[in-house]
Parts: sequence; C-alpha cells; structure tokens
Amino acid sequence: MQEFEIGRAKRGRRAWSFDDIAIVPSRRTRDPEEVSTAWQIDAYRFEIPVVAAPMDSVMSPATAVEFGKHGGLGVLDLEGLWTRFEDPSSLLAEIASLDDAGATRRMQEIYAEPIKTELITERVREMRAAGVTVAGSLSPQRTKEYFKTVVDAGVDMFVIRGTTVSAEHVSGQAEPLNLKEFIYELDVPVIVGGCATYQAALHLMRTGAAGVLVGFGGGAAHTTRTVLGVAVPMASAVADVAAARRDYLDESGGRYVHVIADGSIGKSGDLSKAIACGADAVMIGSPLARATEAPGRGYHWGSEAWHPHLPRGERIQIGTSGSLEEILFGPSVTPDGTMNLIGALRRAMATTGYTELKEFQRVEVVVQ
Amino acid sequence: MQEFEIGRAKRGRRAWSFDDIAIVPSRRTRDPEEVSTAWQIDAYRFEIPVVAAPMDSVMSPATAVEFGKHGGLGVLDLEGLWTRFEDPSSLLAEIASLDDAGATRRMQEIYAEPIKTELITERVREMRAAGVTVAGSLSPQRTKEYFKTVVDAGVDMFVIRGTTVSAEHVSGQAEPLNLKEFIYELDVPVIVGGCATYQAALHLMRTGAAGVLVGFGGGAAHTTRTVLGVAVPMASAVADVAAARRDYLDESGGRYVHVIADGSIGKSGDLSKAIACGADAVMIGSPLARATEAPGRGYHWGSEAWHPHLPRGERIQIGTSGSLEEILFGPSVTPDGTMNLIGALRRAMATTGYTELKEFQRVEVVVQ
Amino acid sequence: MQEFEIGRAKRGRRAWSFDDIAIVPSRRTRDPEEVSTAWQIDAYRFEIPVVAAPMDSVMSPATAVEFGKHGGLGVLDLEGLWTRFEDPSSLLAEIASLDDAGATRRMQEIYAEPIKTELITERVREMRAAGVTVAGSLSPQRTKEYFKTVVDAGVDMFVIRGTTVSAEHVSGQAEPLNLKEFIYELDVPVIVGGCATYQAALHLMRTGAAGVLVGFGGGAAHTTRTVLGVAVPMASAVADVAAARRDYLDESGGRYVHVIADGSIGKSGDLSKAIACGADAVMIGSPLARATEAPGRGYHWGSEAWHPHLPRGERIQIGTSGSLEEILFGPSVTPDGTMNLIGALRRAMATTGYTELKEFQRVEVVVQ
Amino acid sequence: MQEFEIGRAKRGRRAWSFDDIAIVPSRRTRDPEEVSTAWQIDAYRFEIPVVAAPMDSVMSPATAVEFGKHGGLGVLDLEGLWTRFEDPSSLLAEIASLDDAGATRRMQEIYAEPIKTELITERVREMRAAGVTVAGSLSPQRTKEYFKTVVDAGVDMFVIRGTTVSAEHVSGQAEPLNLKEFIYELDVPVIVGGCATYQAALHLMRTGAAGVLVGFGGGAAHTTRTVLGVAVPMASAVADVAAARRDYLDESGGRYVHVIADGSIGKSGDLSKAIACGADAVMIGSPLARATEAPGRGYHWGSEAWHPHLPRGERIQIGTSGSLEEILFGPSVTPDGTMNLIGALRRAMATTGYTELKEFQRVEVVVQ
Repeated sequence: MQEFEIGRAKRGRRAWSFDDIAIVPSRRTRDPEEVSTAWQIDAYRFEIPVVAAPMDSVMSPATAVEFGKHGGLGVLDLEGLWTRFEDPSSLLAEIASLDDAGATRRMQEIYAEPIKTELITERVREMRAAGVTVAGSLSPQRTKEYFKTVVDAGVDMFVIRGTTVSAEHVSGQAEPLNLKEFIYELDVPVIVGGCATYQAALHLMRTGAAGVLVGFGGGAAHTTRTVLGVAVPMASAVADVAAARRDYLDESGGRYVHVIADGSIGKSGDLSKAIACGADAVMIGSPLARATEAPGRGYHWGSEAWHPHLPRGERIQIGTSGSLEEILFGPSVTPDGTMNLIGALRRAMATTGYTELKEFQRVEVVVQ
Repeated sequence: MQEFEIGRAKRGRRAWSFDDIAIVPSRRTRDPEEVSTAWQIDAYRFEIPVVAAPMDSVMSPATAVEFGKHGGLGVLDLEGLWTRFEDPSSLLAEIASLDDAGATRRMQEIYAEPIKTELITERVREMRAAGVTVAGSLSPQRTKEYFKTVVDAGVDMFVIRGTTVSAEHVSGQAEPLNLKEFIYELDVPVIVGGCATYQAALHLMRTGAAGVLVGFGGGAAHTTRTVLGVAVPMASAVADVAAARRDYLDESGGRYVHVIADGSIGKSGDLSKAIACGADAVMIGSPLARATEAPGRGYHWGSEAWHPHLPRGERIQIGTSGSLEEILFGPSVTPDGTMNLIGALRRAMATTGYTELKEFQRVEVVVQ
Repeated sequence: MQEFEIGRAKRGRRAWSFDDIAIVPSRRTRDPEEVSTAWQIDAYRFEIPVVAAPMDSVMSPATAVEFGKHGGLGVLDLEGLWTRFEDPSSLLAEIASLDDAGATRRMQEIYAEPIKTELITERVREMRAAGVTVAGSLSPQRTKEYFKTVVDAGVDMFVIRGTTVSAEHVSGQAEPLNLKEFIYELDVPVIVGGCATYQAALHLMRTGAAGVLVGFGGGAAHTTRTVLGVAVPMASAVADVAAARRDYLDESGGRYVHVIADGSIGKSGDLSKAIACGADAVMIGSPLARATEAPGRGYHWGSEAWHPHLPRGERIQIGTSGSLEEILFGPSVTPDGTMNLIGALRRAMATTGYTELKEFQRVEVVVQ
Repeated sequence: MQEFEIGRAKRGRRAWSFDDIAIVPSRRTRDPEEVSTAWQIDAYRFEIPVVAAPMDSVMSPATAVEFGKHGGLGVLDLEGLWTRFEDPSSLLAEIASLDDAGATRRMQEIYAEPIKTELITERVREMRAAGVTVAGSLSPQRTKEYFKTVVDAGVDMFVIRGTTVSAEHVSGQAEPLNLKEFIYELDVPVIVGGCATYQAALHLMRTGAAGVLVGFGGGAAHTTRTVLGVAVPMASAVADVAAARRDYLDESGGRYVHVIADGSIGKSGDLSKAIACGADAVMIGSPLARATEAPGRGYHWGSEAWHPHLPRGERIQIGTSGSLEEILFGPSVTPDGTMNLIGALRRAMATTGYTELKEFQRVEVVVQ
C-alpha cells in the first residue's frame, strides 16, 4: 500500500480509477469464441456478468425482462416512477424534453409523488410473468417499509442499493435497519451496497449478503465528488473488496460473496478492467441507457438527481446508439466502446489468453 | 514527508491541493439529522463552521448581519468600498457592468479613494445594532493605523488578513506591526493570516491569536501563482497547520488555536475536504458571492484585484444561484456543489459516520 | 521496476508512454551531416529505419515502391482493398468522402468483399517489377490460408501483424498457426507482432522471427484502450522488448532479433524517442498518411476500423502536409513534427552526440 | 535523485518544469521596497537580473538600448534581420501581417538573405553610442566566421547561443569551434549556451565563460519537444546547473560562473521560480515581445522558426500589453503575470523574507 503524507497531521493512501490502469496482454492468445462469460450467483446462472442498474432511465418492467432474456440480471428500482405512477410513460417523455436549466427542479416535483405498495406488487408480477430471474431494488432508508411487499410479490433476488450502505448504520431517530438480522431472515438472496473499502465490504459480507456492490453507481451521471468531497476510485475499491471476498471466504469457511462493481463503467473497456481488478460481475447504467428501448429516451439519471434537498447528479443527454441486443452483443458500428460490450469483453479475455471470468481476474494490469 | 530532488541543488516537498484528494467512507453510516456542525471559538458559538470572507463582492454590512443570523461569522472588509464611500451602491453596480478588458484599471481608480475612519465606526455600529457577532478585517499594513478606531467602534472579533502574514515582519522604513504585543494588548480575540506552513502558523499561534487563516484566500479569483510563482496547495497546508495547532496546544499548556482554511474552497465538497484535512472552520468567498443578496451582483473579486501596481486577481463573473439561505441550507436545485453547502457537509459526515466536526477531522482520505 | 498496489488484491506496474518522456542532451554535440540512419535486417539494408505500416490509407503497390526508393521498407496489406478489388481507386475516393457518422458502417460493407489469391500474386509482382525490397503482411488468422500464395509470388520479407500475436495461440476450433514451425520452414525472413511485454516478445523471438513488432500499431487511429481496456504504453513496452532482444541474443548464442516499434509514433519526436527506448526501427502509419501520394487522400484508418462485429478504430481525417519525400527528408514548412522526419532524427542524434542508431539507443531520457 | 525504470532496458530520471513547482512562504515577511534585484556579472552591474533574448521580435538596436537604460542587458541577434538588411522595418511589418499558414515558408525566404559584416559593425556602433552595456549574439555555427567583426566593433559582452552548445562539438567536415581556446583568447566576457545538464554545464564553465545559458530559449515559441523529442524541464535543469556552478567554484578555486535560465519563462511567476531553483539571472523573450516598442509588433518568433530545412518553432501572435517600462516595473493593469515583472519578483522575495537574489535562491519550493 502506497501512503502519502498530505501534511504533517494527515496521511492518505494512493487510489486509482479505471482510467488510470490498462490491461496488458502478456502470454498466450485464444479464440474469442472459446471464451465463456458465464456468471453464477446463488442458484442463478447468467450468460453475461452484467446487472442492469435500477435506474428509471435504464430499467422498466419491459427492459428488465428483455435484459434477462439476453442473459443478464435486470433490476427494477422499486422507488422509481414505476411504483409511483400507474403509467409513467408521459412523464418519461416529459423528462426527456426538459431543458437543462429546469430539469433538476422539475424532476424533484415529479418524484415527490408517493410510492404505492400495490404498484410494487404489480410491477414484480409483470416481470415474473415473463419467466426471467426477477430482481427489484430498494434504498436502505425504505427497505424496512417495503421489503415485505416486495418479497411477497415474489422476487428472486433483492437489491438494497444506496450511495453508501454500512452494516452498522447508526440512527437516533428511528430504529435503523439491522442488515444482519434482516438478510438472514429473508429467503431470497440479497445484493447490497455500495461500499468502498475492505472493512466496509467485509462487514457487509458478514450480514449474509450474496453479493456486494462496490462503488457509488451512476458514474456518468453524478457529482458526489464535487458536492460531498466523497469519491471512490473504482480500480482500488474493487481490488480492495476482492481481498475482502478472499478473506471472508476463509473466515466463513467457504462462503463466496460476489463482488459487483457499480460505478464508472461507461465503456466496454471499463467492464474488462472491473473484472481485471477482481469483480465477479458489474452493474451498469449509462451503457444501457443508450439502447433504443431504454425508457430514458437518450437521457440518463440516477436517484441522486432528484434528491429533494441535495441533488448530487444530473439528468444528462447520453444519446442512443443501437438496440439493447446490439449494445450487448453487436455488431458494433461505432468504435467508442458503447456497443458490443460482451464481444469486447470476450476479445479482451481472448487477447490475454483467458477463457473464464474467474481466471481473468488475474490478468496483468499497468498503471499509466 | 515525501521530498523530491528537483535538481542537484534543490529539493522540494510534494504538496497536495483539495482537488488531489477525496474522502472515503470506510465504516458505519449515520443519519444526516444527527450531525452537528457547531463551532465555538473563544466565547462565540456558531451553528455553522463558516466565516464569510471580507471581500466587497461578498460582504456588506447587511449581508454580514444576514450571514450572522444564519449561524456563521460575517466579516466586513474595513478597507473596502464601505469605508471609502458613504454609499457605494452605484459603484458596486458599475463594477458589475464593466467589460473585462477595462475592469482592473477602473477598479484601481475606484479603490484609490481614501478610507474614512468615521465610516469604519459607522459600519461597525450598523452591524452591532443587528445583534449578531460583529467582525471586521484590516490588512497588516493598515492595522496600526486603524485598529483603535475599529476596537472603539465595538467589534467582537478582529481579523488581520493579508496574502501572507508573518509574526516577524521586517521593515526598515517604518516600525512594523509587532503582532505579539499587539494581540496580547487587545481585548478582542484576533484571527490572523494567511499562512502556509507549519512554522509560519506556529509563530502566528504564539502571538496569542484565537485563530489562524491558512492559505491566501480568494481561490477562484486570484492569480498569485502566475504572478508571483507563490502558491499554497491547500490540503497540505491545512494538514500542516493542524499539526502546528496540536503541537502548540502542548507547548502552551492547553491553548487551542483554531485553524481556518481560507482559499480554494469553491464547492461544498471542498468545504468537507478542508475539515477532513484538519480545519476547524473555513473562510469562503466565491460560494457566497453567488447569493442573490451578494453585493457583487454575480461578480466576485478580492483586494488583490485592485492593487495599484501589481494586481494579482481578477473580477470574475460567477453568476447567481440562489438566496444566501439556499446556498447554505438548500434546498438545492443544481447538483454542482454551489448550493446547500451545510447540507452537503452534514451528508459527508453522516456517510462516513461522524457526528461532530472535531471527529470528522480524522476521516479517511485518499490521494488520486 | 516500480510496482503499485492498486488495491489489496491487485498490483500493477507503472508504465510510460512516449509523451511521458523526453530526450536530454547531456554530452558532446555533432554535425547532423555526420549522422548515419542506416538500418540492416537480415540481408536487407535500408537507409532509414522506417517500415511503412500495411494500412490501406498509407500503402498501395505504388507508394510501397516509392517508399522503398526513398530507402525504407514499404509493406502492403495483403488483406486490404488491393487484394479484394481489381482497382480500388474509386472505393478509396468514396471512403475519403464519407461523413463521419456512417463511415464505420460503410467500410464494414466494402471490406466484406472476399480476398482473391490471384490479386495477392498480382500485387506482389507489381512491386517486384520496381526493384525494391518487397514485403507484404497477413493477419495471424489468415496466414495459414494465404502464405503459400504470398511466398510463391516472391516477397523478400513477410510480415505477420495483428493487434496481439502470441507464439502460443490456443484454439479449439481449428488447428492454430504454429508460429515456430511455420517461420523455420519459411525461406523468407519474418517480422511478427504486435507484442507488448518482455515475455511475449521473448517467445516470438524464439519462433525464429527476424524482427518483432512492439505495440498495437495505428496509434492515432484506434481505440483499443476504450473498447477492450487493453493498452500498451509504448516507451515501457519498447524498453522491455529491447531487454528481451539482449537476453535472447545471449540465449541463442548470437541471434539479433530486431525490435520495431509499431504504435503511438505520430510526430518526428516520437520516432527519436522510440529508438532512444531501444527500438532498431519503427513502423509508422499516420505520418505517411499525410503524404500527397497517400492512397487515403488525407484520411487514415487501420484494419480495426472495419472489423465486422467489434470495430476498434476510426477513419480519421489527418490532412495532407507535403510529398512523401518532404515528409521523410524535408524541407519542412511546418514546425509540428509532421515533416522532415529523418532530418529531425538526424538532428536529435547530432544534438546528443550520436552518429549511429545502435548507439543512440543509449541516449539519456527523463520522465516528466 | 529519483530514477524510474521506463522498461527493463531503460531508466530515466524524474525531471520537473516550472509549472510543476511553486514557491512557499515559510518564514518572516519583508517590505517589497527593501528588496534589491541587483545583479553583477564580470565588471557589469545591472539593476535587474534580466537579459533580453536575442530574437528579432524582441531586440532591435533601439530596444536593446532602451532595455539597457531600464537596468537590464539587451542582446542583439547578429544573425537576424538587422545584419541582413539595411532597414528591416518593412519586413518586420510584413512578418506581422502574414497569415499563419504561409508564415514559416515566407520567413524562410526572408532569412535566406546573407548576413553583411558591415551591418554587424554598424549595429554595434549604434548601440555603443547610447552609452549602455552592449551585447550581441552569434550562433555556434557562425561564431568563427563573424566574431572578429563583432569584437572589433566593440561589444562589452559576447553571447554564443544555440539550442544546444557543447564544449566538445565534434565535426568531420570542418574544424569545429574550440570553445575553450576561443573564450580564453577573447577579451570580452562570454555568455554561452544552451545546456541542459550538470555535465554539459560543467564543461561549458571550464571554457572560461562568464555565464552559461540553461535551457533552449524561446519557450513559448518553439516545438523542439515535438519535432526532436528533446526537451529540458527547466526547474530540474536550472537546479542541476546551479550545482555545477557550486562544484566548479570549488574546482576552479573561486570562479563564479553565472547561471542564466533561458526558456519557459513566460510569466512573472516563472522568473521568480527560475531564481528559486538557483539561477542568477534570466534571459526572456516572450514577455518583452509584448511591449509596445517590440519590433515584432505583437508577434514573436525565434531563429528555429525560420530554419530552412527543419523549422522547430512558430511565429506566434502574442499581443501587446504595455510599454517596456510597464512590463518591467508596472503599474500593471492585468493580473496575468505579463506586466510589472520586477515588481512581482520583489513581492515574491518580500513575501518569503528575502532581500537579495543570491539568498532567494534558497527559498522553499513544493512540487505539486
């Protein structure tokens, strides 16, 4: 570990983002066709190691189903437009038509509409009917209030996602969510995060989670660094949490908790780098927001963007580059890393001689 | 301490700015509502650890009062427009209407008007009448000439602020201000600076000051680095001076001198980082110059900008983003770190599990 | 070797690009006229240490011949337009006239035309007729299929060029090219690459190659870093492979395998730096694409740009700066490093006191 | 010394430019009025430590005289327009009116005019008549041919200035200038350079030179890094050569050879940094080219810009900011470091507590 003295009274560790590193081919090469990108977590197997982020610009019940049919895990935000409105189509269209200056303010208004439990139930049922693995997400603040509804509605996996989720949240005003009790009591596997450090991840792993999210999510669309001064250089965070996975595996006598990189993955190259740093899978938003099917209609935003008092993200225009299938599997017609994400991952693995994701975590990287 | 050989005959230490670092959440989280941002210096308690910079674009008697009512410490520049002119309103309007090319020259003319002692007295009385903690600032060059007027007028705190203030100024032309004698004789607590190093800060602490300003102030608006080659990377400077505070506390048998970061704090994230590096409070200008009430009318400048011979700063257009209250406490309608400064600080503290500013000085940071 | 901990579970080596370094004059100076830029590989001697990249925007049979007459080694891409079409002139003109948005898609269509073996034979004969050293390139994927045609047609040197070529390609679908057997059986000397590391280069050297290409080629025009996350910082790669050359020289009892830098050489200064890092010669594309004679007509692209499923490069507008002769030998009328490449190399060598390329590999460099 | 492994076969030292460093105030402060900027070299004393660069955009006989009257040392380029043409005024006007595209080519034509010895004599006499210290410069290539004319014409100081000048130039074509013999035989003190390293400077000092130029000159206007790959990070170069001065002082038993930083000094802050790194004085071009009196009429170029075969610099538009007096001594009306250079130097010294240039070489700097 490289640590610097910032000043006499403060030290800080050197940390790296995906942009700071690159994968280096250093041994045999292989055919891309022989590469497997399969990922299994708990009882569920996926052909691609990709979880679609629970963001209204990315996931609707329909796109979650389509994403599942393509071999990934789609996650619906159960606190988003689809559980606040019977039919949010016109609101999604309106958000895509707002001018930049007033976008934050108008989104704050739209999202002020209360969540309806019956819509949670309805959305989960819509997805179940399609026969894919069903997953929904809640924020830690609202998990206590809504989880029973969610579980009863029949999800296969449950995602608790916040900017920072700790296993030991302290609150004097209300009894906080005891993650450990909560997760052990639940029948469905839980993915929980974000977290940013070895210690925080280890504590989350001890709650019984099946997977932990590393990072803050919403890379392209949020501004937490500017607003809070808080940031997670993702290459370092993923590599730290991968060490927590290894140590917890030993400590627990064999429980393998999946590390899911969630943030700063904007291009296909970032996806490869996340796995190279030790991730088992990635959660992505902006690359999928570019799909023609995406509910965001070429715009992208996270839940930080409509925080009523302290928005820490923006609705950004991200454009549309192809169908969801083309974005995942090509063919690509643009060489900017926004299409054929899985083809690019296959080629990165083949170029460096790996056929399995688990092995590819060991690929050589350089710092530049 | 990391030191480099610049060349065979010169070594230099590695120093870091706020932009080089980030706060990392690494343990429990808390509710933002349980966080306290209270700050006490000498007999005065403030609800927010923020001192408004004595700059004409930020502080008028009216905004100083308003800032005090919001829980901070407003400081009026007693060598600015308000003590040179009976009513500077039209001049403030003129400055906001100048084109860039001629702005420096015209400001040099306006500020050539002499300071009037009776206006110093009058301004302080205006502020006292409002019932807030009253503070005014002088430059070290003019402290001897005007301090008696200032103290007699009845300030609660006295600020001596220059680009660099040393406890041992040497002058052959006039008897220099002996800070040590001066401060010990004064009845009101003194905040003095800027300074940039452990040694310089330690000497200032020994003068009896209640607080020291770290940095050169006016981050967004001055160009000292370009003009003089002199710069203070703020993260390192604050962390060095925090060590001086600790060592002086021991040396003095218990005098706690407050460290106030003054410079490079443009966004709410910088405010959090300043405290993370060891500051007790911050002095800010540009974030407050964006208030609708700010005398600068969307423009911002420091006293370096109108130096008659060697201007080292510019009048910059900074825009207006909301009321002073919104800038401090939100709600924010823009995710760029210019609104809800205190809400952002609370959330940064809560996200990293701290409830008191003094503890938050220990939060983990990374270098990126 | 400087290695960093990226995170607890991952380490990465610090690597440098040409932009990160600079040559420093540190001893005697010499007359540029006394400098030799001669380069000999196998039985072939060249007056300039430059291989023209097998890219359709750079090399046609005619420009390969012209380049050879200027003292370098021209290489024709035997999988490009000239072996797919009887007369590709109109297609080259069309590519130069495409708008950016549709360029990748249209190029994918054009290059879908099959390769004709009779055109391979014809192109090689055209070049032989001109009396220069004749070289053609194939990708590793197609070497087995076409090499016999190429050799029978009568090339002097054979280039196998792919993004990453390993001596141990593993394939389950088809029997892969066994480079070692293949090269030893061949009568013509082989240049093979790219490679990026000491180990990969050493393995390529052991196949019997006369030269290895270091890097991915096509610096200015491809986006492998963004798409795959894979990158080769060239200064480090060249210096690593130069060490492999030295070690293989010892291991083999005297076989000197040439190191040819292939990538990130956009300006004349990069050419000097490549040799300073240990290269014997360079393969360049974009500087030659600027010639008035270049088939690309001011545009430049590599074979990655028209990959049918995963394009990793773009057709970029590069402009035209002078004749091929002026680009190589001046006179230059623009001080941006795009003209008089060899004059610049001579001057860099003279300024630092070297008269032979082999010695110039030892010149002092700094990291900035 | 910090050295990196660039790759297994190459190491390179870390080097720093002025932009990488900053001066830090760390002790007492002083009044700017008590600061002396006097500089003495050989028998000549100057009130300011500034040598005006021998460039046609900066120095005419008239501006050399004016610069001398302001306390500095003006140097006329004796291979420039003033010794090629009886009256170059119209050509200077033409150069200022050329469009960018054709500027290099037209300047190559203009400077193709031969040098006339009688004009050398005439120009020196013009300057002598004004009573200032007279200095002229030749390139190393032409020193042998013209120096006698120059000395006979009566210069006080003689400058030999090239991109890189070594004490041991090797040439097979003509007998090279033996600097050591040449300088010892000459009656007038010689300033010679550029050089970039400790060793090169030490050799130049041993030739008997009164001063050495460190760097390549013409920072703002040349592109040697791009064209040749050769660069001199100035902070490191000056600090290295300052060590050579100290060691040569010992070796020679007391000869103090002046170190004159020549390059990358565009703003007043760079001037302070050059001295902070150990320079005794600076040679500057671009800051003076901004004078209303400058022959370049708002344009600036060096002799690299019109090299007939390999131009390595550009004619750049630099604008006009004030009279020569205002640029040197203010008052400044722009806070960008282009005016009141000496006032800024004084303030940098005062802020850090120094009154003499020689002491200011010890000021603390940080790397950022």
